[in-house]
Amino acid sequence: MPSRPAPRHKADSASDLSRFLAPRGVAIVGVSNEPSRIGGQALKLLTDFGYTGNIYPVNPKYREVRGIACFPDLAAVPKPCDVALIALSAQHVAAAIEQCGKAGIPYALVLAGGFSEVGAEGATLQAQLTATARSAGVRVVGPNCLGLMNLKDEARIGFGGTMQLKTLRAGPLAMVTQSGGFGFGVVAMACHFGLGFNYVVSTGNEADLTALDWMADLIERPDVEIVVAFLEGIKDGRQLIRIGQRAVELGKPILVWKVGNTDIGQRAATSHTARMTAGYELFRAAFRQGGFIEIRDVDDLIDIAKAFRIGKLPAGNRVAVLTLSGGAGVLLADRCIEHGLQLPPLTDATAGRLREILVSFASAANPIDATAHGYNDNFASYARAIREVLADPNIDQVVARVPRGSAARPWSEGLVQSLRDTKKPLILSWPTEQNNVPCILAPGRAVRALAALTEFARKRRDFEEGSARAAPRAAPRQALELPPRGGTLGEHRAKSVLKGYGIPVVKELLLSPAELEGLTALPLAFPLAVKIESPDIPHKTEAGAVRLNMPDLAAVKLAAREVMAAARRHFPEARIE
Amino acid sequence: MPSRPAPRHKADSASDLSRFLAPRGVAIVGVSNEPSRIGGQALKLLTDFGYTGNIYPVNPKYREVRGIACFPDLAAVPKPCDVALIALSAQHVAAAIEQCGKAGIPYALVLAGGFSEVGAEGATLQAQLTATARSAGVRVVGPNCLGLMNLKDEARIGFGGTMQLKTLRAGPLAMVTQSGGFGFGVVAMACHFGLGFNYVVSTGNEADLTALDWMADLIERPDVEIVVAFLEGIKDGRQLIRIGQRAVELGKPILVWKVGNTDIGQRAATSHTARMTAGYELFRAAFRQGGFIEIRDVDDLIDIAKAFRIGKLPAGNRVAVLTLSGGAGVLLADRCIEHGLQLPPLTDATAGRLREILVSFASAANPIDATAHGYNDNFASYARAIREVLADPNIDQVVARVPRGSAARPWSEGLVQSLRDTKKPLILSWPTEQNNVPCILAPGRAVRALAALTEFARKRRDFEEGSARAAPRAAPRQALELPPRGGTLGEHRAKSVLKGYGIPVVKELLLSPAELEGLTALPLAFPLAVKIESPDIPHKTEAGAVRLNMPDLAAVKLAAREVMAAARRHFPEARIE
Repeated sequence: MPSRPAPRHKADSASDLSRFLAPRGVAIVGVSNEPSRIGGQALKLLTDFGYTGNIYPVNPKYREVRGIACFPDLAAVPKPCDVALIALSAQHVAAAIEQCGKAGIPYALVLAGGFSEVGAEGATLQAQLTATARSAGVRVVGPNCLGLMNLKDEARIGFGGTMQLKTLRAGPLAMVTQSGGFGFGVVAMACHFGLGFNYVVSTGNEADLTALDWMADLIERPDVEIVVAFLEGIKDGRQLIRIGQRAVELGKPILVWKVGNTDIGQRAATSHTARMTAGYELFRAAFRQGGFIEIRDVDDLIDIAKAFRIGKLPAGNRVAVLTLSGGAGVLLADRCIEHGLQLPPLTDATAGRLREILVSFASAANPIDATAHGYNDNFASYARAIREVLADPNIDQVVARVPRGSAARPWSEGLVQSLRDTKKPLILSWPTEQNNVPCILAPGRAVRALAALTEFARKRRDFEEGSARAAPRAAPRQALELPPRGGTLGEHRAKSVLKGYGIPVVKELLLSPAELEGLTALPLAFPLAVKIESPDIPHKTEAGAVRLNMPDLAAVKLAAREVMAAARRHFPEARIE
Repeated sequence: MPSRPAPRHKADSASDLSRFLAPRGVAIVGVSNEPSRIGGQALKLLTDFGYTGNIYPVNPKYREVRGIACFPDLAAVPKPCDVALIALSAQHVAAAIEQCGKAGIPYALVLAGGFSEVGAEGATLQAQLTATARSAGVRVVGPNCLGLMNLKDEARIGFGGTMQLKTLRAGPLAMVTQSGGFGFGVVAMACHFGLGFNYVVSTGNEADLTALDWMADLIERPDVEIVVAFLEGIKDGRQLIRIGQRAVELGKPILVWKVGNTDIGQRAATSHTARMTAGYELFRAAFRQGGFIEIRDVDDLIDIAKAFRIGKLPAGNRVAVLTLSGGAGVLLADRCIEHGLQLPPLTDATAGRLREILVSFASAANPIDATAHGYNDNFASYARAIREVLADPNIDQVVARVPRGSAARPWSEGLVQSLRDTKKPLILSWPTEQNNVPCILAPGRAVRALAALTEFARKRRDFEEGSARAAPRAAPRQALELPPRGGTLGEHRAKSVLKGYGIPVVKELLLSPAELEGLTALPLAFPLAVKIESPDIPHKTEAGAVRLNMPDLAAVKLAAREVMAAARRHFPEARIE
């Protein structure tokens, strides 16, 4: 990683969440001495993995659980207690949050489902939860989530099969996931392939703290180098953009896996955690701007995280490819070009040295084919060739195929040792695996990882240049009269925004029903269309709230009365302007 | 796999290559008792892996090698000997091929490099090799190749690190690779992930037998279900198309990995095995028509081959997705839609039964989210749900996430047992692994494999319907006067081909210099362009062989003299028509 500048401005994390991630004490509300139950599992997760903070079981039924003193309610819990894990069913959660507030417990984690993901009744419960949390001054993760983990301190606060895995390990990644089950599964898989996570947060229905809040928090932490986010949908696009800018500023990539991008995927996401998903293209635009790397599968995450973990960003997009087989070189070259990387010629000096090092029929052009004769000297000449190419001033980064067989591991270890001081990334493409050399099985995947490094490095450079000379805006920022919390604009307001930026729009007039009735003439040319103006009726035609081709004022007045009536019929509670 | 029709016509395999793949005896010309040398390695590969045919070392230096009688030359080798493995350097190869012919040995395999991949001198050697093989009646694999393997009979005829691996295994795949080093490496990797290959052929420079010849041969073999081809370039596009048609007819997919698709990749391919690569789009068009599935990385090969190995093709593109986590369902749904698959609703009957089987807040819509409550009964209800969905008449195939943890393996084994009789493909997405259930780690990869099955199944259905009612041609086939071995057409000939199919072309006249000089008028309107007509000068402008905007006949005559002179200067040996 490049050196990190001191934070200039944080990307609006909701508040300091440090004690949520590293609590001095955790209360388990609804604890059970039955390890198969959620409240029992949660206790076992804290006792069995070495969490050193205080554990406070809370349940009026018990005096002690598994040898630990149990408290009748949160008021009885000693201080300090930073987090209440609430293992109660949905209808009892709000009351528990209220108790947190009274007991001075700043953070609560709600596991139960049965909130907005199950329909209107659940949505009401969730609105109550949110309101209670606000008034009690308690920040909440969940509901409908699996909890969070600080694997550095072995604080595993939640439940589920993945949390019980001994194979999870700490490391400089952090994961924020809107899908607990899948996201935690991905973490387990990544740990299996050698990555480690200091923090893992499942945000569930996001009644209070959102995935974006957590991304903003985690990216600032010194023990986090890479943030991974599994997103189904978000509500605040500007926060996403700010987080992306901050990621570039800090030199820490955010690997973002966005799902719910097709109609059917969006529908499933909505029923899953009750989240609306915006158009995929809007997300991609935000991803392109900021310090995001979009990933689309478990492989991407593993490969790209490995590549970033080496802590070297390429100075540009010029790649050298070295192989022991021409075929591999051809396909790696293809993939590099497809990913926007370049394979420039080597300098004459390097090419000359390669001709000395390699057999006569090897290719010293880029891609460099050392041929199977590399096997003849236990790959000593091949390693020398890699070192020469890494030192070439025409080359920013190198991808090299590792030889097969038992010699591969000692060979690559020796190579890596000899390359400790190079600032350029080297990716070895074959399934050996070792600290600080990303070894990526499939050649296409190796190149994909290089391309991700290159993309992020370019964004970093753009940022560093741009922070000196900010690009002028094409149009001055407009003071726009927008609804306070975003949401849908009506057609008239949307058009004024466009007009403010100089985009031509159709002529129109916004009139109340009374204003219209009082008119004797209109300053517009007939025929005219009559539409309702309401931010709550995005699909006007379906609501019967549009009439087209009105030939004169009388027809317009009649149509206006009709569309008002139709809108009221379809959307009794819609705001109509 | 669907039942195979009896072959109607073979896709022009060059001749019967059975004895090449399963020789009764192999002669090793240039054998060595030094196992580090190629001729020593080749002997060791035949003796150490259980090949039961006869082995005939050939080298005048030895009476015996490693306890086996050695012969001074091929004439002395006893019969039957079907294959001569020629481990001699380039300049001695043609003579050895000639001896094969005299000794009645029908097949030779040439390992040495130093032929057309190293320039003009090597190209001359290769042309001699080809001519000798033709006149001697010997079919040749190579030169510049690693050899071939019949892993069923443990005939490993060649050399190199991969051939020495004990982990290679036989199975119903066959691999044809133009890059020995890379292709063999891919085979080793695929074997590591549970696939098996009955035949593996490295074709090298293809002085005689080509990758297409081998694909045509292997696809016909009863012990081959799937052919994998790693191609850098081919010379006969029509043969490729015929092989694709035959693959559909036989119901056997060809997984084709085409590299050398970018300019720089093509350049590398040319220097690698001296092959010209046509435009990638032409390949893709052929791949779309025939029984090909294009693959782009090792993962694709492994995943898709696993999916085909289950022997079930979906009746259509309707997929059901089942997960224990909504997030996984969302992303699998996205990927299905992106791959052109459909997620239709289940029938009311199935949906009703799912509502009985699953917890109330599970989603019975497709994607089906059984939620983490599936963990509560050891996934018994989840397995029942999968069985119900597989039986749904709205569904052609199922992808299901496997639970994590120690219960996953016995669970998936039980599930698979209970599903033995379904005709629909089921893919389990999680890294358990077992015979006859393709388990694919990454969800996106699982869907990619389903999509490949679906694509091939569609081609099969199209074929079966099409073989009854052949589509009428848009234009009758034209008898075209084409050069005998393909190659580039000149502009005039190319235009006549187009004209033959009714495509309008610019008016033109092909004249010899003498004919032009004799003219006093031209039946074309001025201004005119003057160009050389030669199949050997594809880039006329660069050769100075084009003059535009000639205002009259005198200017045309002058220009013609100039372009002739320029063409002769640039291409002294070009055929000019």
